[in-house]
Amino acid sequence: MEKLRVGVTGASGYAGIELMRILGRHPNVELRAVTSRSLEGKAVVEDMPLLRHIFSEDFKFIKSDPKVQAQMSDIDLWFLALPHGVAAEYARELLAAGKTVIDLSADFRLGSLERYIEFYKSEHPAPDLLKMGKYIIPELFDISKNDKLIACPGCYPTSILVPLIPLMRERAVSTSGIVIDSYSGVSGGGRKADLTYSYCVRNESMTAYGLPKHRHLSEIEEQLSIAGGTDVIVQFNPHLSPATRGISTTITVPAKFDGVEKIYEIWSKYYAAKKFVKVLPSGKYPDTLYVSGTNRVDISAVYDPRTKNLVITSAIDNLIKGASGQGVQIMNLMFGFDEGAGLL
Amino acid sequence: MEKLRVGVTGASGYAGIELMRILGRHPNVELRAVTSRSLEGKAVVEDMPLLRHIFSEDFKFIKSDPKVQAQMSDIDLWFLALPHGVAAEYARELLAAGKTVIDLSADFRLGSLERYIEFYKSEHPAPDLLKMGKYIIPELFDISKNDKLIACPGCYPTSILVPLIPLMRERAVSTSGIVIDSYSGVSGGGRKADLTYSYCVRNESMTAYGLPKHRHLSEIEEQLSIAGGTDVIVQFNPHLSPATRGISTTITVPAKFDGVEKIYEIWSKYYAAKKFVKVLPSGKYPDTLYVSGTNRVDISAVYDPRTKNLVITSAIDNLIKGASGQGVQIMNLMFGFDEGAGLL
Amino acid sequence: MEKLRVGVTGASGYAGIELMRILGRHPNVELRAVTSRSLEGKAVVEDMPLLRHIFSEDFKFIKSDPKVQAQMSDIDLWFLALPHGVAAEYARELLAAGKTVIDLSADFRLGSLERYIEFYKSEHPAPDLLKMGKYIIPELFDISKNDKLIACPGCYPTSILVPLIPLMRERAVSTSGIVIDSYSGVSGGGRKADLTYSYCVRNESMTAYGLPKHRHLSEIEEQLSIAGGTDVIVQFNPHLSPATRGISTTITVPAKFDGVEKIYEIWSKYYAAKKFVKVLPSGKYPDTLYVSGTNRVDISAVYDPRTKNLVITSAIDNLIKGASGQGVQIMNLMFGFDEGAGLL
Amino acid sequence: MEKLRVGVTGASGYAGIELMRILGRHPNVELRAVTSRSLEGKAVVEDMPLLRHIFSEDFKFIKSDPKVQAQMSDIDLWFLALPHGVAAEYARELLAAGKTVIDLSADFRLGSLERYIEFYKSEHPAPDLLKMGKYIIPELFDISKNDKLIACPGCYPTSILVPLIPLMRERAVSTSGIVIDSYSGVSGGGRKADLTYSYCVRNESMTAYGLPKHRHLSEIEEQLSIAGGTDVIVQFNPHLSPATRGISTTITVPAKFDGVEKIYEIWSKYYAAKKFVKVLPSGKYPDTLYVSGTNRVDISAVYDPRTKNLVITSAIDNLIKGASGQGVQIMNLMFGFDEGAGLL
Repeated sequence: MEKLRVGVTGASGYAGIELMRILGRHPNVELRAVTSRSLEGKAVVEDMPLLRHIFSEDFKFIKSDPKVQAQMSDIDLWFLALPHGVAAEYARELLAAGKTVIDLSADFRLGSLERYIEFYKSEHPAPDLLKMGKYIIPELFDISKNDKLIACPGCYPTSILVPLIPLMRERAVSTSGIVIDSYSGVSGGGRKADLTYSYCVRNESMTAYGLPKHRHLSEIEEQLSIAGGTDVIVQFNPHLSPATRGISTTITVPAKFDGVEKIYEIWSKYYAAKKFVKVLPSGKYPDTLYVSGTNRVDISAVYDPRTKNLVITSAIDNLIKGASGQGVQIMNLMFGFDEGAGLL
Repeated sequence: MEKLRVGVTGASGYAGIELMRILGRHPNVELRAVTSRSLEGKAVVEDMPLLRHIFSEDFKFIKSDPKVQAQMSDIDLWFLALPHGVAAEYARELLAAGKTVIDLSADFRLGSLERYIEFYKSEHPAPDLLKMGKYIIPELFDISKNDKLIACPGCYPTSILVPLIPLMRERAVSTSGIVIDSYSGVSGGGRKADLTYSYCVRNESMTAYGLPKHRHLSEIEEQLSIAGGTDVIVQFNPHLSPATRGISTTITVPAKFDGVEKIYEIWSKYYAAKKFVKVLPSGKYPDTLYVSGTNRVDISAVYDPRTKNLVITSAIDNLIKGASGQGVQIMNLMFGFDEGAGLL
Repeated sequence: MEKLRVGVTGASGYAGIELMRILGRHPNVELRAVTSRSLEGKAVVEDMPLLRHIFSEDFKFIKSDPKVQAQMSDIDLWFLALPHGVAAEYARELLAAGKTVIDLSADFRLGSLERYIEFYKSEHPAPDLLKMGKYIIPELFDISKNDKLIACPGCYPTSILVPLIPLMRERAVSTSGIVIDSYSGVSGGGRKADLTYSYCVRNESMTAYGLPKHRHLSEIEEQLSIAGGTDVIVQFNPHLSPATRGISTTITVPAKFDGVEKIYEIWSKYYAAKKFVKVLPSGKYPDTLYVSGTNRVDISAVYDPRTKNLVITSAIDNLIKGASGQGVQIMNLMFGFDEGAGLL
Repeated sequence: MEKLRVGVTGASGYAGIELMRILGRHPNVELRAVTSRSLEGKAVVEDMPLLRHIFSEDFKFIKSDPKVQAQMSDIDLWFLALPHGVAAEYARELLAAGKTVIDLSADFRLGSLERYIEFYKSEHPAPDLLKMGKYIIPELFDISKNDKLIACPGCYPTSILVPLIPLMRERAVSTSGIVIDSYSGVSGGGRKADLTYSYCVRNESMTAYGLPKHRHLSEIEEQLSIAGGTDVIVQFNPHLSPATRGISTTITVPAKFDGVEKIYEIWSKYYAAKKFVKVLPSGKYPDTLYVSGTNRVDISAVYDPRTKNLVITSAIDNLIKGASGQGVQIMNLMFGFDEGAGLL
């Protein structure tokens, strides 16, 4: 089979690095270009020594430039690992040139322009493309080869929507009174020279931040509302924890049924055949350590007869299933590769 | 002023170590004996090298023995840093001999014997003493010099009750629909040779455990019910985080008032004059790093107009304000010492 | 190509887990059995949740038993991830039954029985097999398909011998006055319920241990003596650092040449074509973070004109290049697979 | 006794923070001013929330300005926690105004101007003051009340010179062939918004840096040469380890005597009466965890009969005994306070 020719733009951040690590040894892909505004001309392995056994010194960052990239005829698909706002500009040029775009940013995650403006506090640079963007959690949404603009979900939303959407669709839990607490590893803050993310400030530090209206709340509520068939508003409390990777999410939701049987039935229906969602027995808890470096979501649930709540827990690697791995999984499915190619 | 003569029994665990660290340089106290079943005859600084500049090699653990300790006429007050169930047996002997007892275990935290049996799944070894035990959060409860048996609150409960009890007493928040997520550092699991608490299992690990009925829930609900004047049942979700110390707690509670003004008024009334409770402005978040090594509780709150919830956050050092430091603070107040003696 | 049928005995430790992770997705291998004394009958993914996407619940540990394993006709090669002393007993039975054995323990690393007894302080359980054992660093020693008993080097020795052996062979550095300081991540201590390896004891802890005669010194000196053509005695100072993985090694050795040119020439001759040894330019330092999860050794050197010493630094992942990955690399070369199969 | 009135200039770094923590509760000191170029007007507890129970919101940074500070008649002693080069300018003004200066920077550590220029690669801003500066390790050097300009040793040098200077003075070890490997926690790199010190870059990272001529080597060699009565040149290999605090140092030095008896005799003579140096028995190893938060140096030694080397190990908290704590200890001794005041 001929290899798919791909590029990564904005490859200098943690998601970009992870994309290079995966795509650099993906059996069905040829990684032909990686771009960066700040690292143009630098060898990839200089900036990311972890990849020294995968890339040679000759593999270098080229300059990020939407018009130039649109003209590169030897690349079929671009991953965008760019900040929101910036990604949309690249998407416009690349789509116009007929490329497929898998966007890790937030620019095409929302169907509602108003919601984008409300949560991201800026105009959208390409509102006309919003409709074209397909928000894809690969275990839950259909992907078509004709899709040209894929919006990868955010890291927190992935850990929340994988367990909740099936229960919402099947009307198995309440759509109100939902409280979600998530703790993220520090890489979620990005690769930045910022005192806030320095070792001595984050080590031994557990703390909430950005309450009560984190940007990811916008896509969480939009997707839960679609799945639940009604406006869903949730309390989402994000935190930081002293780990490099991982998101640990705990969802308290008023139950509609006693016990967890119904919940597990639904999850089994949706996920028994899915490679990257593991449903743990009630009483076993997902642990970020055990999904670290993998594309898995582990999920579980207990029922509390005293409160009539379900407590659902999940864990992901924020950089893989929460970003780059999920993007590659989507690509695999779009192009008919093995779903786990490059991801095992 | 003559020094108070104290002893610590069960001094080999993390709370015991912390007690020795504090009491060993407390200006009003003479630490005359520390006991351990496993470390009898061993020098304290052998087992706890951190204390090498405080104790000499001659200061050794003696054998834990309730009857022998009761006869030690040169000790006025005993701290119990023993497992629940065991502590009560020591308390009985020591009280009979006229000693004052400050108990860090759970044995005298609950007023209700039924609740103890339900949550601790064993008979209580001294049910006749339950009434004598005074559960003391020093900022919230009166302490009398006549009290002879003090029950120190648990670590999770301290982080939860300090912010919530004033709001419950003042009827300022809902008494139902409360969800509490806490993340604890690993020292909360105790000083044990257990694979679960080994470095490689806890590093990079965030995970829930013990849902939905952690033992500490018993005292949380008992105290909130007393404060709120009605039966309060809450969802309490404990977790572990890769840190040595600290508890980060996030409480979502349906609000009775728009905004946080009323909440901050109440907190100010209760805590403005308190040395060890710091109320942070709304929008600043308590951080375990910044209470580490201190006896403080930092608390804060935001109001979410979309959900009509208050989100309250708090942080403590689980071994200090969550255990040993609070015990010493109580002793300071009982005996008329400066509240912060040994704790600053 | 038909797949090689392999088993892992003693699969419950960190090296065993890593072997399962690698072999479970190795393209040329069928992993047919994993054994454990303590985990017999337990599902592998129960004990090692990280592998949930690789193995099903049906893949279970069988009982470790050398005689039974020797009779398993469907397994061609056994990896031994057993303690020293125990491994030799398994090797004897398996070799007698015609199996190939790749041993991660120390039992067959030394040519000298006296040295074994001196450093391991016990009799050797199979001294007659010592000669049969081939000590293999795959970049430095020839491997033959006829070899039946492979001794994988220890973790510290790998980090030391890869940079030093070529320099010894080429007589490019002094054979005396060598000082080696190594820091290891905590996984080097094994998977044990031991207070010494608990999170709260290791976090924030840097310390030496086992001076001056760590067991690994025996193979370090034996191999350096062979390479240098004279008895080589070195100072080897091992330490622990608060990390899960990695060994950082710094070797100070009196130089024979000014500058590093000669050193880099030799390294280039030995390693330019080697996938898993990366020679960094002088002034760039190997970092355990950047070899973590890989089978690489990164090495570098600076020359100090003031002391006339070379300072050589290296980094490996102690569980991969320092144990399981290197074992698989050896298997790949023995059986004509791609050297990096399963390791990229 | 009247309190000593002190100020801290450059209080925004880790050493400055630690000074404020210690001086803010020192029984013999009144901390009257803290200065910062970047934090002028900001409340100290805003920038350093750990101190919320020690300082009120009213205690604010004032602007750093040598001329203004020199005119502040209510301050007798200034601590300088400034970068090298800058500190000397403040020292000149403050000394001219009759203040006592305790300088944590490198500006007055060296007696030799040439050495300063060689290692710090810049002119010295106040070479005329070099002679006035007294380099003080309080356990090893006499302090006079007439001293006006104290140079506090660097962190690495403290961990090296405390064990070695007595042995050099007593001619008990070789003065050549010395190799020193040190691992430092990340706070040693300073409080900077720098990707190099970010959590995700330092976590799980062990690496050498700055070989072979770290700036601290200048004072190490100068002091060892004075103590040994001959030019001493050493190999000093600094590294970083994933911890917030601590320096772990291992010194390999050719022995002059068999065994460690002579070494321990000398250490006992120098240190038996010293509160902040603990000599551990041979075979026990200093551990950064157990000096963390203390002003102690723990030291130990083993003798290796095979190599005829002594291997000396030491551990300090780099921010306390390696910087601020040692500065306060010096102040205590200069002004007749208890040596451990504020430090226990």
